[in-house]
Amino acid sequence: MPKIFKELKKIFILLEKKYRDMQDVEFTVENNKLWMLQTRSGKRTAKAAIKIAVDMVKEKLITNKEAVLRVDPNTLDTLLHPTLDVEVEKKVIASGLPASPGAASGKVIFSADEAENLKEQKQDTILVRIETSPEDINGMHAANGILTARGGMTSHAAVVARGMGKPCVSGSNEIKIDYENKFFKSNEFLVKEGDTITIDGASGKVMLGKVPTVKPEISADFSQLMKWADKFRKLKVRTNSETAADTRIARDFGAEGIGLCRTEHMFFEEKRIISVRRMILSKTLEDRKEALAEILPYQRNDFFEIFKIMSGLPVTVRLLDPPLHEFLPKTDKEIEDIGKKFDISNQDIKSRIIELHEQNPMLGHRGCRLGISFPEIYQMQCQAIFEALAECKKKKINLVIPEIMIPLVSTAAEIQILRDLVDKKAEEIQKKNSIKIKYYVGTMIELPRAALRAKDIAKFADFFSFGTNDLTQTTFGISRDDSGKFLNDYVENKIFYKDPFVSIDERGVGELIKIATERGRSQKKSLKLGICGEHGGDPSSIEFCEKTKLNYVSCSPYRVPIAKLAAAQAYLKKKYPKFPV
Amino acid sequence: MPKIFKELKKIFILLEKKYRDMQDVEFTVENNKLWMLQTRSGKRTAKAAIKIAVDMVKEKLITNKEAVLRVDPNTLDTLLHPTLDVEVEKKVIASGLPASPGAASGKVIFSADEAENLKEQKQDTILVRIETSPEDINGMHAANGILTARGGMTSHAAVVARGMGKPCVSGSNEIKIDYENKFFKSNEFLVKEGDTITIDGASGKVMLGKVPTVKPEISADFSQLMKWADKFRKLKVRTNSETAADTRIARDFGAEGIGLCRTEHMFFEEKRIISVRRMILSKTLEDRKEALAEILPYQRNDFFEIFKIMSGLPVTVRLLDPPLHEFLPKTDKEIEDIGKKFDISNQDIKSRIIELHEQNPMLGHRGCRLGISFPEIYQMQCQAIFEALAECKKKKINLVIPEIMIPLVSTAAEIQILRDLVDKKAEEIQKKNSIKIKYYVGTMIELPRAALRAKDIAKFADFFSFGTNDLTQTTFGISRDDSGKFLNDYVENKIFYKDPFVSIDERGVGELIKIATERGRSQKKSLKLGICGEHGGDPSSIEFCEKTKLNYVSCSPYRVPIAKLAAAQAYLKKKYPKFPV
Repeated sequence: MPKIFKELKKIFILLEKKYRDMQDVEFTVENNKLWMLQTRSGKRTAKAAIKIAVDMVKEKLITNKEAVLRVDPNTLDTLLHPTLDVEVEKKVIASGLPASPGAASGKVIFSADEAENLKEQKQDTILVRIETSPEDINGMHAANGILTARGGMTSHAAVVARGMGKPCVSGSNEIKIDYENKFFKSNEFLVKEGDTITIDGASGKVMLGKVPTVKPEISADFSQLMKWADKFRKLKVRTNSETAADTRIARDFGAEGIGLCRTEHMFFEEKRIISVRRMILSKTLEDRKEALAEILPYQRNDFFEIFKIMSGLPVTVRLLDPPLHEFLPKTDKEIEDIGKKFDISNQDIKSRIIELHEQNPMLGHRGCRLGISFPEIYQMQCQAIFEALAECKKKKINLVIPEIMIPLVSTAAEIQILRDLVDKKAEEIQKKNSIKIKYYVGTMIELPRAALRAKDIAKFADFFSFGTNDLTQTTFGISRDDSGKFLNDYVENKIFYKDPFVSIDERGVGELIKIATERGRSQKKSLKLGICGEHGGDPSSIEFCEKTKLNYVSCSPYRVPIAKLAAAQAYLKKKYPKFPV
Repeated sequence: MPKIFKELKKIFILLEKKYRDMQDVEFTVENNKLWMLQTRSGKRTAKAAIKIAVDMVKEKLITNKEAVLRVDPNTLDTLLHPTLDVEVEKKVIASGLPASPGAASGKVIFSADEAENLKEQKQDTILVRIETSPEDINGMHAANGILTARGGMTSHAAVVARGMGKPCVSGSNEIKIDYENKFFKSNEFLVKEGDTITIDGASGKVMLGKVPTVKPEISADFSQLMKWADKFRKLKVRTNSETAADTRIARDFGAEGIGLCRTEHMFFEEKRIISVRRMILSKTLEDRKEALAEILPYQRNDFFEIFKIMSGLPVTVRLLDPPLHEFLPKTDKEIEDIGKKFDISNQDIKSRIIELHEQNPMLGHRGCRLGISFPEIYQMQCQAIFEALAECKKKKINLVIPEIMIPLVSTAAEIQILRDLVDKKAEEIQKKNSIKIKYYVGTMIELPRAALRAKDIAKFADFFSFGTNDLTQTTFGISRDDSGKFLNDYVENKIFYKDPFVSIDERGVGELIKIATERGRSQKKSLKLGICGEHGGDPSSIEFCEKTKLNYVSCSPYRVPIAKLAAAQAYLKKKYPKFPV
């Protein structure tokens, strides 16, 4: 029916022009007559959305601004990670939260150490834990994916996995783990250590056996779209990173600096954790300083590696933040090891553990409170930073712009005292190396009081970085680790329309950010403002950041392209409230 | 030297008139000539201060307003509690924080149960604990005083002891307790269970042996001063109380209602804790309702007793607030007991305990979040309240004005949903008893977000009560239970001039209170505003409450007279900024 086909083609072009979008069209041909039944903008995968947008710009149907606005940033995730082969039949045995996208298969293992061992034997593993904690970091790095029985979208496992760009299914209530006998049960299934499973972090599904995956590919269209996005974007996009590997990935994805380098993540590595523990167990300042001296070269080298990769860009280093008890030995064996090595009785170690125990570690002896109590820790960290910079200078590496960040400030006095500590150490190292280094000192705004007192605090700060994870926790009085117990009731009752740990709660937490922004800038016009919580990678939160006129957002390496596209959209939406543009 | 004596007397009168205060005068007589060397207002004890003030009014040297302003409210504490005999030599073995005034002697015991046993044998005891927790309540009631090795001025032991008007020394780092072998060491002293010690909660000192004490007496001058204070006062003064005994003490001290009745304190009593535990361990709604039905009569009777005493005055009842795990069995024996009684396996109980464990209970599944997840708990509590009111009506007892308070609200939706629950239950009980009861429903403002969203929240609230303990914790991001570890560093470094848990932090927490007050009243002019944190008994915080135009403060029974005097001073200072008045 060449005539009808020609007519149909003409109508297709007409419809696409009229609706300025790819159309999903229904038609029929009856008695040689063409009937158009329905047309609507077609659904599409991320890949198709990008291709359609770029094609339509080429065809001059839409502008490149409009193309940028056409693609949902959240869908880019699927383009950056492996996905499950849709053709293959799957045996789903459990489901949980889609905590970190991507699909992975491997042998079930229940301990981080075991994951490391198998990694050395080049075996693929899925680390299965009730929940993870900072000492599982190496195992999480080693495993191909992470599955937890407990914890929400912002649990330790979820946050760390997203940062690593590693698939994770969290809070799968269906699975009951028996660590002792090394198996987990899920409904009628029993899965033993060594059995192979597949997890899909995009859907939250757990499957028996190995399900083939499809590798992602970065298309030319994707690159074109990102170039346009970069052109229209005002917000800078940095990354949260503390390893050379992550930093490289982020820079490859176009990160414009590091917005949050959590120095404590560098403390868990096997060789240094023992010195960290020695430091914490020290009874005298002298002992503590000796232990810190052991940690110094590691920390300095970490910084050097990161500074090399981020050369020329700003890098925000946050000084030690978590409470010290997070680093303490947990098992009897660990206690014995450390006791033998440093000649401390097991009883002494155990009583120190009890002494350091906290009812609410989130609100405890952490952040700058550690810097006030143990200035020698922050001094060591500053020494490592400035010596790493000196090393860069010596090796003629283009220096990063160091931004030293004091966490958990709630009063101007805290930042005043600790800024002084940083300045003194900076001066000392510069003098010793006969060099001059430009650096900034600032603070996280992650407590309601800090937001309210921003004007005073800005006297002593060159920048504010909004730690929206903790700010959300304190503003709502909700511990994200514990929120799993009632979050479902809250969503069912429509008390929360959105999880405030995923998208910024504009009417509460957002007001505090606005207050801090206004009061901070009223004190110091040049104050640089950014956001480094998990929200830094969330498109709707990024829109809020653009509206509030922050300078940058910072997010996990794998979310950098998402944040860039979202930042461009936020700017375009603000500048051109009328669509199409 | 009658001539010189006459001259001296004349000068004394002149000086007292000139300075309008009792004078501490130095003079000498040389060669029959009188020389005046120095004069200044004299230091005085609380008792003397009151007598001087009242005398000077009688002598028309000062006005009664000025008399009210002359006495430091904090010093009244010593008039309301027994004090140590100053004449006797004391053997001080340790010191801690002066957590709750008064002096007490008794045999050292290390467990709450033992305190109860010895109480039955009419023996005096001092309960010595590393720290106390809610299940120690009965033991704290039974003991004559409390000594803890850990915890600040607002630790559980300190707060509860002040509420009970019982002497307490908290956070005495010097004492090292060995529960197992039943002794404590303090410096070179070893104190065994059964040894007698004396604690002085006014100075924080711990002494060996029994030191005699002097009983307080309420003088006519004191009563006169309080009458004047009542005349000049605008702020109402209520009490925090949940037992008949405390309520009676507070009413005798002139409390004008209850500002905070913490219903959970009624859950720990031996006979009912087992039903509470059954309720928490329930796997089905039906089981839970059965357990709640067991608790109902107890709770109803508690309310009836309190309502009877506070007849005619407002009583704010806070619905269940703490996380459920606080009520769970702790020891293996307790687990076995409950397992046997309700035919639950120990394993099941233990896994429920693990399930309910929280990382940060302060920010966990508590407050109105429990009411959302388990409406049947709040329904039972409302039933108990309204049935107790019906009972009062039947017995022709003048009804209290019931104010039902929803804790830990952070969104308008929470109070909307739970107000509806209260209203439904109220209607049901009124219908069943064919009566009409006027009641109010309101919320605690204890989270930064609640303060910010006060305008929305006020739509569904008849009153706000500022829970300044928790509001301080969340605004600063400081857990008061854990703050002991760094508070000293903070005071030494002058980061905190005052402990924010003792006096309201006006520049941070205070701003949130102001915001909530303005926004709340802009929605509902009639909104009643009060404060029920520990700050309600602190004179400088009371001054802030007067400035912010709250309606009432609520404090521990023994602080009611202090709060009344402070409230009068706050009003006078505001109304007459120029002294003398």
